[in-house]
Amino acid sequence: MKTLLLTKDEVRRLIGMTEVIGAVEEAYKAFNSDQVEQPDYIGIDLPPPGEIDFKLGYYKANELISMKASSGGFVDNPTAHGVPNGMATIFLFDARSGALICVMDGSLILGLRTGASGAVSVRALARKNARKVTSIGTGNQARMQIRAINEIMKIEEIHAWDNSRDTLSKYKADIESEFGIPVIMANSKKEAVAQADILITTTRGKGSLVEADWVKPGTHIVAIGTDQRGKQELDPEIFRNAKVVVDSIAQCTEKGETWHPLNKGIIARDDIHGEIGEVLLGRKPGRESDDEITIFDSTGMAIQDNTTAGTIYQNAIANGVGTFFQFFE
Amino acid sequence: MKTLLLTKDEVRRLIGMTEVIGAVEEAYKAFNSDQVEQPDYIGIDLPPPGEIDFKLGYYKANELISMKASSGGFVDNPTAHGVPNGMATIFLFDARSGALICVMDGSLILGLRTGASGAVSVRALARKNARKVTSIGTGNQARMQIRAINEIMKIEEIHAWDNSRDTLSKYKADIESEFGIPVIMANSKKEAVAQADILITTTRGKGSLVEADWVKPGTHIVAIGTDQRGKQELDPEIFRNAKVVVDSIAQCTEKGETWHPLNKGIIARDDIHGEIGEVLLGRKPGRESDDEITIFDSTGMAIQDNTTAGTIYQNAIANGVGTFFQFFE
Repeated sequence: MKTLLLTKDEVRRLIGMTEVIGAVEEAYKAFNSDQVEQPDYIGIDLPPPGEIDFKLGYYKANELISMKASSGGFVDNPTAHGVPNGMATIFLFDARSGALICVMDGSLILGLRTGASGAVSVRALARKNARKVTSIGTGNQARMQIRAINEIMKIEEIHAWDNSRDTLSKYKADIESEFGIPVIMANSKKEAVAQADILITTTRGKGSLVEADWVKPGTHIVAIGTDQRGKQELDPEIFRNAKVVVDSIAQCTEKGETWHPLNKGIIARDDIHGEIGEVLLGRKPGRESDDEITIFDSTGMAIQDNTTAGTIYQNAIANGVGTFFQFFE
Repeated sequence: MKTLLLTKDEVRRLIGMTEVIGAVEEAYKAFNSDQVEQPDYIGIDLPPPGEIDFKLGYYKANELISMKASSGGFVDNPTAHGVPNGMATIFLFDARSGALICVMDGSLILGLRTGASGAVSVRALARKNARKVTSIGTGNQARMQIRAINEIMKIEEIHAWDNSRDTLSKYKADIESEFGIPVIMANSKKEAVAQADILITTTRGKGSLVEADWVKPGTHIVAIGTDQRGKQELDPEIFRNAKVVVDSIAQCTEKGETWHPLNKGIIARDDIHGEIGEVLLGRKPGRESDDEITIFDSTGMAIQDNTTAGTIYQNAIANGVGTFFQFFE
């Protein structure tokens, strides 16, 4: 019995964004097809600001159980321990035997699968003639969103805003050199949002960043940043007449962007259009007119890690990549 | 950043029973000293009879977070997959950085730390002049109990019972050759129980195996087998006038042997004397007379895996045992 070990570098070489988009789309469909078990995640309360949690997912179709351990917030790590302030590892178990078949570095997977989730929502919910993307926030995940959306449509220009002008300039230089897409550095959030066919929010915001009357009809909003209570990026009024699609109703009503308009009574739970898996499976319509505002609220699910890591594992086996270790005879 | 990998064979060579007993005693004391976080375990419902669960424990003193993945019940494994029907792996994370510092085979640790738990209870609760041990059940854990108790006292003879005469004969031969302790094969449970200074139950029993009026005054009972609802080994009447000590009140009242007398109203929750950590810390008395019947109900806690695996890890580092793997630069 041998366990496959995959380094971060091997993980990077074993999967491309197109495959991640496919894996995430599969994850969303599986979630709405009784193919998934995702127990509540468990975590440890460490002395602040460090945190570590464990997310477990089982996908019946690939017969894999994934456990992702991810840590974050250890701000002294680079100086004190020579490691990043957040790390992740994914453990894969064969559901047919219970065996640990793979341990892979997981630090790239969160970024990749979160980027892919935006692209999946764009394909399902954005206008077919969408060309302009606005990015509120220009950090790593903002880049990942562009990388993923660029795989599935032609982006003509990007309007970007960040509260740090330096970060914004760096984003412009990186995106223009990597993808050849012109980036316009906005002078205000309002100016940027008014340009959007697709609006992406990927900040660590803890209050409304985007006001309702800035958003033009027909915009598709990819709300990424809010994955726990206390975070917020959008004026809850935006939800009032929007088509709201979420990754998981249970999660988004508890800790996603959708919690805010529910909490304020701006929408009721029944006003949520549905989960994205239902749209992808054709059980619920996606966009129905060029005028409607669509919102995709993504909190992230263990099953996305499962299908992404499962694809990486299969690619590793197929290509003979990685190191086998025998924990017992 | 390097992660230490330890095989089953290395784990075996890295720790002895005396050290495991010390680790388990430390775990029990820590549990009652606000040094431990143990979230509820999470599991996946696989198609029967296979099961897999994940137990997480954090011990503030050693700054280690342990995650144990353990599977069981995969009866086709030996023929279909060439692996045992149950496996376990322990992952250790440094609580100061969140880094994955060790992955070790965990299949020996459950047996070792469960064996040690009986010995810890014997030291705290059995009569000082106890010499005769009775074992109801003669499987692997029954042997492990003897191995552990033999470390801390002189066992003069063992009275053993099993519903399989073959298993019982094998136990007798093994114990006599390994430890030189004479084993008397009992013709009935009653006959065996009547001999006991210390009575160990390690079966997969699902109903009462030991009747109350067989148990003589002064007996210490180590109740190991019942760790989930539906299992049972003792007549609940035994609890009526016994001193009941548990590893965890929360767990034992929910799924331990102690659930049965509570459920029948034979004892109330307040009749539980306390947790073994409280006794070990001197906050509550242990045995107070040669006549009292003491019961130790063990359901098993993540913190026992943590301290045991932590000791193994430290021994590995100190002795240069194991293989380092670098998941990222």
